[in-house]
Amino acid sequence: MLIVKAGGGLSISMEAVADDLARVVNQGEQLVFVHGAAEHTNAVSEALGHPPEFVEGRNGLTSRRTDRRTLEIFLMVYCGQINKLWVEALQKRGVNAVGLSGLDGRLVRGTRKSRIRVRKGNRWVMIRDDWTGTVDHVDTRLVQLLLREGFIPVLTPPALSHDNEAINVDGDRIAAHMAVSLQADILLYLSDVAGLLRSYPDESTLISSIKPNQIDQFIDLAEGRMKRKVMGAKDALQQGVGEVVIADGRVEDPVTKALVEAHGTHIG
Amino acid sequence: MLIVKAGGGLSISMEAVADDLARVVNQGEQLVFVHGAAEHTNAVSEALGHPPEFVEGRNGLTSRRTDRRTLEIFLMVYCGQINKLWVEALQKRGVNAVGLSGLDGRLVRGTRKSRIRVRKGNRWVMIRDDWTGTVDHVDTRLVQLLLREGFIPVLTPPALSHDNEAINVDGDRIAAHMAVSLQADILLYLSDVAGLLRSYPDESTLISSIKPNQIDQFIDLAEGRMKRKVMGAKDALQQGVGEVVIADGRVEDPVTKALVEAHGTHIG
Repeated sequence: MLIVKAGGGLSISMEAVADDLARVVNQGEQLVFVHGAAEHTNAVSEALGHPPEFVEGRNGLTSRRTDRRTLEIFLMVYCGQINKLWVEALQKRGVNAVGLSGLDGRLVRGTRKSRIRVRKGNRWVMIRDDWTGTVDHVDTRLVQLLLREGFIPVLTPPALSHDNEAINVDGDRIAAHMAVSLQADILLYLSDVAGLLRSYPDESTLISSIKPNQIDQFIDLAEGRMKRKVMGAKDALQQGVGEVVIADGRVEDPVTKALVEAHGTHIG
Repeated sequence: MLIVKAGGGLSISMEAVADDLARVVNQGEQLVFVHGAAEHTNAVSEALGHPPEFVEGRNGLTSRRTDRRTLEIFLMVYCGQINKLWVEALQKRGVNAVGLSGLDGRLVRGTRKSRIRVRKGNRWVMIRDDWTGTVDHVDTRLVQLLLREGFIPVLTPPALSHDNEAINVDGDRIAAHMAVSLQADILLYLSDVAGLLRSYPDESTLISSIKPNQIDQFIDLAEGRMKRKVMGAKDALQQGVGEVVIADGRVEDPVTKALVEAHGTHIG
């Protein structure tokens, strides 16, 4: 079982990733695909006159300020435009994809952080109408049903809160929870960097392998979204996932390069 | 088995329809829900600087001019914003909805009309880059799988062409094909009119009942989208659907009013 997460950067080629995913599926591999759409969402938000805003939370991590209008734009781009373009790209290649968000069939449950404390300059202010949250649980019943019948699930945020509202959650965390729940052999993150770099953005400093007992020291090295991926990798490995790979999604044959030719950063 | 199609008019209350659908599902009725998003798509198209355009085809019917940019906006609004808002509204009411487009699992197949002849003033011109099409076939395998496991399918255009491209098709036709394929007892259209009117828009001229052998004379009476619904009703009844109802989607309890209190136009 292989879980592939493609990031939402504009430099990731949908055509190249879909080509390689089709090859993997045609080889008989069980696949669950997860994708983001962050940069596309930024572009549509700008075009609709509701420009994106990012806030820094208490944990030092940055997230998208998500008022209800932003949440609707998020649904448009993640679940509409990008999810269905992935499904179309896979269908064109003979893969019988089914696109789903975390809302559908209560696939991904999370906790809404209805009040978040964020930094404004050097002050901390409370925001009360936010629709972000954390991923708590992935229910694999629908996914396993689809896999058993030969469909390939194509998943995207948002998640469903415990009050049954759509919430903006991190797609990397959905992929990690999915990998744990399905006890995947490999969790592969394709993003717009070559992997974890000792000295970002110098790609000659790529770290090609990390043993489980070394992860903590590398978490400190990572920044931003990469930090989340490495933290997620640690959790996933501790909970039974075979290997986590962080690799370049901007190249031809990105899955093959990462898994067969050992490109990127291999953790586990 | 009940198929309900809610139109994409802004005057249809998602809250009221979802309340009533939840009641129907909680009574143990098997339900497939289909929705449109035409007016929302117009609004987003305007906001994104790609205003909607409607063309009249050889059959006298009007359809949305769908270049590739329009198709992406269509995906955003139908499959993203509106499909997931319906799913969220149903989940809030305890209904375990799964939102799907016709692309997902090859649910709805259609024929792309890559060249269409449309009227421009009093001339006919050929358009070659259009992404509209007809509904040919609904594959109910995925829908039946979901129903068997207690999920409620929430379906929306587009369809998947025979070349595996997304195509803009009529949601009313998807609902009619679905009703035939599942041999539904009732196909209910909720729209922004009270039903078929003898003298549109005078609602006091509502036609409350049409027998199968009277349908042809009423097709001539109907205009625009209503004509398509009545034509679809004829096909559906001939192919085994029990009854087709066209009723008001702008009211409280629209499903109950249509099916229990016999509001709207009942055909069959």
